[in-house]
Amino acid sequence: MVFESEICGTVGPSAATRLGQAQLGARIQRQYTQRKSFVCCGHRIHAVVALRGWDAMTSLADKGSVPTQNLFQGSWTQVSCPCCMSDRVEPLVVIRLSDKVQPVTKSWLISLIEGSQRHGGAALLAHPGEDECGDVIVVSAPRCTLLKATEDLGLCKKYCNGDMVAFSYQDRSNFSNVDNMQEFLTLAERQYIVKNELDSLQAQKKQKIPGVTEATVLEAWGNVCQKLAKARVIKDIFPLHDQEKLKELGKNWYSRKQIWGQPLDAIQSYFGDTVAFYFSFLDFYTWALVPPALLGLALTFLVPGMVMKKQAEEGMMGDDDGPSVSGHMVQAVFSMLWSTLFMEFWKRRSSALSHNWGTLQLAERFAEPRPGFHGTLGINPVTGRLEPLFPEWKSQLRVGLVSVPVVGLFMGLVVLGMTGFYYGEALAQSFHQDSASWFSRVLLYLPSIVHIVYTNMLGNMHSTVALQLTEWENHREESSFQNHHTTKVLMFTFFNNFAVLFHIAFYKQDILLLRKRLASLLIVTQLVNQCTEVLVPFIVDCFLKATQRKQKEDDPEVDKLIAQSLPPFPGLFSEYIELLVQFGYLSLFSCVYPLTAVFLLINNVMEIRGDAYKICKLFRKPFSAPVSNLGVWQTAFEVLGFVSVMSNCWLLLLSPRVQEFCLEGRISSKNILLFAILVEHVLILFKMVLAFMIPDEPDWVRIKREQMEFQSMQALGQRKL
Amino acid sequence: MVFESEICGTVGPSAATRLGQAQLGARIQRQYTQRKSFVCCGHRIHAVVALRGWDAMTSLADKGSVPTQNLFQGSWTQVSCPCCMSDRVEPLVVIRLSDKVQPVTKSWLISLIEGSQRHGGAALLAHPGEDECGDVIVVSAPRCTLLKATEDLGLCKKYCNGDMVAFSYQDRSNFSNVDNMQEFLTLAERQYIVKNELDSLQAQKKQKIPGVTEATVLEAWGNVCQKLAKARVIKDIFPLHDQEKLKELGKNWYSRKQIWGQPLDAIQSYFGDTVAFYFSFLDFYTWALVPPALLGLALTFLVPGMVMKKQAEEGMMGDDDGPSVSGHMVQAVFSMLWSTLFMEFWKRRSSALSHNWGTLQLAERFAEPRPGFHGTLGINPVTGRLEPLFPEWKSQLRVGLVSVPVVGLFMGLVVLGMTGFYYGEALAQSFHQDSASWFSRVLLYLPSIVHIVYTNMLGNMHSTVALQLTEWENHREESSFQNHHTTKVLMFTFFNNFAVLFHIAFYKQDILLLRKRLASLLIVTQLVNQCTEVLVPFIVDCFLKATQRKQKEDDPEVDKLIAQSLPPFPGLFSEYIELLVQFGYLSLFSCVYPLTAVFLLINNVMEIRGDAYKICKLFRKPFSAPVSNLGVWQTAFEVLGFVSVMSNCWLLLLSPRVQEFCLEGRISSKNILLFAILVEHVLILFKMVLAFMIPDEPDWVRIKREQMEFQSMQALGQRKL
Repeated sequence: MVFESEICGTVGPSAATRLGQAQLGARIQRQYTQRKSFVCCGHRIHAVVALRGWDAMTSLADKGSVPTQNLFQGSWTQVSCPCCMSDRVEPLVVIRLSDKVQPVTKSWLISLIEGSQRHGGAALLAHPGEDECGDVIVVSAPRCTLLKATEDLGLCKKYCNGDMVAFSYQDRSNFSNVDNMQEFLTLAERQYIVKNELDSLQAQKKQKIPGVTEATVLEAWGNVCQKLAKARVIKDIFPLHDQEKLKELGKNWYSRKQIWGQPLDAIQSYFGDTVAFYFSFLDFYTWALVPPALLGLALTFLVPGMVMKKQAEEGMMGDDDGPSVSGHMVQAVFSMLWSTLFMEFWKRRSSALSHNWGTLQLAERFAEPRPGFHGTLGINPVTGRLEPLFPEWKSQLRVGLVSVPVVGLFMGLVVLGMTGFYYGEALAQSFHQDSASWFSRVLLYLPSIVHIVYTNMLGNMHSTVALQLTEWENHREESSFQNHHTTKVLMFTFFNNFAVLFHIAFYKQDILLLRKRLASLLIVTQLVNQCTEVLVPFIVDCFLKATQRKQKEDDPEVDKLIAQSLPPFPGLFSEYIELLVQFGYLSLFSCVYPLTAVFLLINNVMEIRGDAYKICKLFRKPFSAPVSNLGVWQTAFEVLGFVSVMSNCWLLLLSPRVQEFCLEGRISSKNILLFAILVEHVLILFKMVLAFMIPDEPDWVRIKREQMEFQSMQALGQRKL
Repeated sequence: MVFESEICGTVGPSAATRLGQAQLGARIQRQYTQRKSFVCCGHRIHAVVALRGWDAMTSLADKGSVPTQNLFQGSWTQVSCPCCMSDRVEPLVVIRLSDKVQPVTKSWLISLIEGSQRHGGAALLAHPGEDECGDVIVVSAPRCTLLKATEDLGLCKKYCNGDMVAFSYQDRSNFSNVDNMQEFLTLAERQYIVKNELDSLQAQKKQKIPGVTEATVLEAWGNVCQKLAKARVIKDIFPLHDQEKLKELGKNWYSRKQIWGQPLDAIQSYFGDTVAFYFSFLDFYTWALVPPALLGLALTFLVPGMVMKKQAEEGMMGDDDGPSVSGHMVQAVFSMLWSTLFMEFWKRRSSALSHNWGTLQLAERFAEPRPGFHGTLGINPVTGRLEPLFPEWKSQLRVGLVSVPVVGLFMGLVVLGMTGFYYGEALAQSFHQDSASWFSRVLLYLPSIVHIVYTNMLGNMHSTVALQLTEWENHREESSFQNHHTTKVLMFTFFNNFAVLFHIAFYKQDILLLRKRLASLLIVTQLVNQCTEVLVPFIVDCFLKATQRKQKEDDPEVDKLIAQSLPPFPGLFSEYIELLVQFGYLSLFSCVYPLTAVFLLINNVMEIRGDAYKICKLFRKPFSAPVSNLGVWQTAFEVLGFVSVMSNCWLLLLSPRVQEFCLEGRISSKNILLFAILVEHVLILFKMVLAFMIPDEPDWVRIKREQMEFQSMQALGQRKL
């Protein structure tokens, strides 16, 4: 078994455990001495390492100031495995420790990081930074650890025959670039693997952490990093930027001359799959907005003119409050069709991207459980490994019986808040009309203020509760955890965003108000977004650059400070929710306001650059797990597609012309309602048939996938159990 | 590759092809002589073979009338492969030829059946029956052919560690019972494999068939059996019954003392998966009917009493025409919930059965295409085999652009027919009222007669068109073909059955008529069904048995005649559609007539025995493909579950009490309609959440499946490509 075997040869604690405690002390002492001999020139170098990583180090080495061999052999973990030997060690991840951390704690942690996996270590390479009192540990990974982790993750890599094949450590010689880790794995993958190995560090027996208060005891099989984070020893773990590559990426991305196109493969390589999938989706979505935008323009500027002309010829006056019924109809049916096609073709694009990026065969289920997962220790019946076990039906039950009702309750509270707001407003209005004093005028603002405070409190409460609930549900896989968490927050946020619009559309049934509201939402939120997302960051960055340039001349040490003062990346949640809400405006209500798509198109073209600039320049680099699709976001967009059919049918029913039709008595309102229901059901059926008809992956991806399945079937037949 | 290698050692034509044409003639001559020497005692034996198969032969042999070795060595294909050697050959399948078939054609066919796969043969064992002029060929299979086909099909068999593992020919020694084909494969599997090998016989080059008219030419890669069937050389291919086993099975099945329970494993072993899945589903469905039947009884006999008592106390008169609104509501919600739970738990049961029967990993996609599949000859990109290729998107396109509209057209014609019928009836009625002559009285019957003729013609036309369309769609896999064909026929039949009921419920909106119609349908169709399915067959069988007993004393030859005079098994389509229509009555309309479930329960208890008796006694044994679930039928039941939510909501809306409520003006009819729509959408959402929450397979099956996946992932990693 791969998992039992010792990762070949990181000397240090792995050997140390064998040497016994007495020898260990002497050994660590010697290592420290070695390190201290390096510290004399370490002050500056370390500073650059933390920010610049690899290139800064090598460039320093290249300049001949310190011989490379000398520079790292004393500081980085020494490697004895011949295949992991290299004269350059690439710093990948920084662990930031608390300022008050004891040297003994730091050296204990380093020994764990360096230790072989058989002895509960992470089999990584560590560099203590400045000295043993400094507050960082720089971590890298030897070749063997990277390759074995690649196999465990189930990443596909280019085989010698050109196909993407799930990597196999045993068969490694047949994969392309397997000797050059910088080519074989992307930077994001290498950094994710390091983080993953750090995250899965477990205590092999109950023990106390040296140099930390007595109260903090590591349970057997307890997660080390989580415990250290709780004990405030570890402040942060983050991947290092590679300034050269980042500059190159930015040039082809946010500084690009053409409006369209993004360097998706380069993004995937530098930032990883989650980020690359977001930008691919944004790109695809923006392209997809072109047809509805054209239709919207046509309906707004061409059709009304024609209709009015016709009406003028017939001697009738057209009412000016929106597109005609037929325009409505065209827009509604088009939007229904468009949203289906959009999602189906995105799925095809997504599976093609996933194939090219090697994430089609991720084996998360068979890997170790996520760090937060707990349960009774036992043998996993599938993989035969010792790990915490927790029955899946219990998780499911917790989701169904507790989480769903709780989220439902929160959504109920949103509705309650809205009802209360309307009621309060009506009350304040009537009170103001009755008394008309300064007090009553102030009172007019009260409902809004209370509602805003209430909504904010509710939002904060919900996000806390959602995280705790998801933790409590105890999902084994990280992706499952993410999906459940995202779903909860998503439901609430979405409901919060659309409750007012739905209220106007379905309860007040006021199409004119809906149209005004939608237009103002689109224009205002977009302006606000663009300001906060693009303008402000740009100004901040310009300001920073100026000071930076000034300081740089004095001391490269500031680089480190800047690297650490950058805020952590807030994640893609808010970006996705922005897209989803946009998509909601478009698919749910666009027949009311046909120009929606035009606004969204303009917004997205700017959004691409804004987001790109943001992630490159304004935040710490995020870790990015290998993923094969958008996950729960894809489902959310699809569900919205179905809801949009209902909403469009309803809005059509409410459209002024249809209402006129009813009032004129040409058809009873009950019958037209029945007709709308019938149309809704038929459209949903049609949507489902269409979605079923369009395959979710292009033929060539299907063939590749089936080839892999066929080969693994054959391989299973050929092996002896 | 397994597929390229020669199936070891069936002597005869396989060798013959190598020996050349000149020697072949002499060899066939010699074989015939051998066979003829056997014919002297063959007359009686052959007759028994065709009906009784294995046991009759061995019992004859055991009686010492002919030494076993002697008996078969001269007649069955001789085997040289040591592992396929056995002193008993089990006759599995009979090929019935036309009476006029030439001996040269028969011997050509036998040589093909015996030939090695490398030379385009089927690598089976053949027995010419009585002599070379007789009209049957009895076919069996040697061990190697059976084992290799088992691997190709992807059947799971018991491994030495007790798990069900996909069979691997290379690893065969580690599987249980691999030396005894009668234990290793079920009778149904052995017979299916023989049929499958016969079906996949292909001409290796363009050739004419000896002894058949010049016009019939076999194209290169043309299917041999299809061509021979077209040329009327082959009349029939059917599997042999094993009378001993059949008697044993019957005793535990239709002659069982207990009402509940069926010997499902024995059924699977004897009749194969499709039949066993049908009876398992019937069993599960019957059990599942108990709760709705109890509720129905309670609502019919208990609740109205209580309501009337309460109404009497309040001095009101209860209207006697059905259950109360609350009863309606309870029934509707219960029926919605029940249908969801029923299907979800069936899926779990189905996957457990599939695991136990070894069909969880069927590899149909990687096997050869179905016989009717055609396309340009090329290399399959997945398996690397030479076979006809036809892009899947073309099939999909044909389904979407031609088949769907055509089936829709037929459904439109059904509606047209129904409209015409109602119109005609109204016309005839008014004409009769006006004139009241004998002519007008006769005219009254005309619409019904015309409608019946029209419906029948439409049905026949549709079944022809459906088969041709599905052939034209050109599906690669047999299961895909079956599913598309079934779906077409199913849609039409279902629509035909329910059009009238839907018309009454949704258009006429006459609940009372619906209730009467439903009751009469339930009682009449069940009586008719039970008569045609159980009583008539029973009487026929009794009559047959009597004559049989009389004749048996004279001549065992009659056995053969009986075997051949039994009608072919009509398939499970009509059985499934009966269940589906039942399920439709229950889930769509049961809130109108709560006793539905009770009638269905009684019907199903009888149905189980009737169907069992029928398949055992009254029909030729059917071939049965290995399948892992109900296929399209499962989807049909699920879809019906969703339709039932809509239908129940609508019926609730139409219920007399709700209508009264509206008339009394307590709530506007438009608002109550809106409320019904809301309820419908919420219920559908709830149904989807519930279906999502209940895992489709029990935990232990999931673990077994994941174990297999993990092992094949590992195996893939360990192999060198």
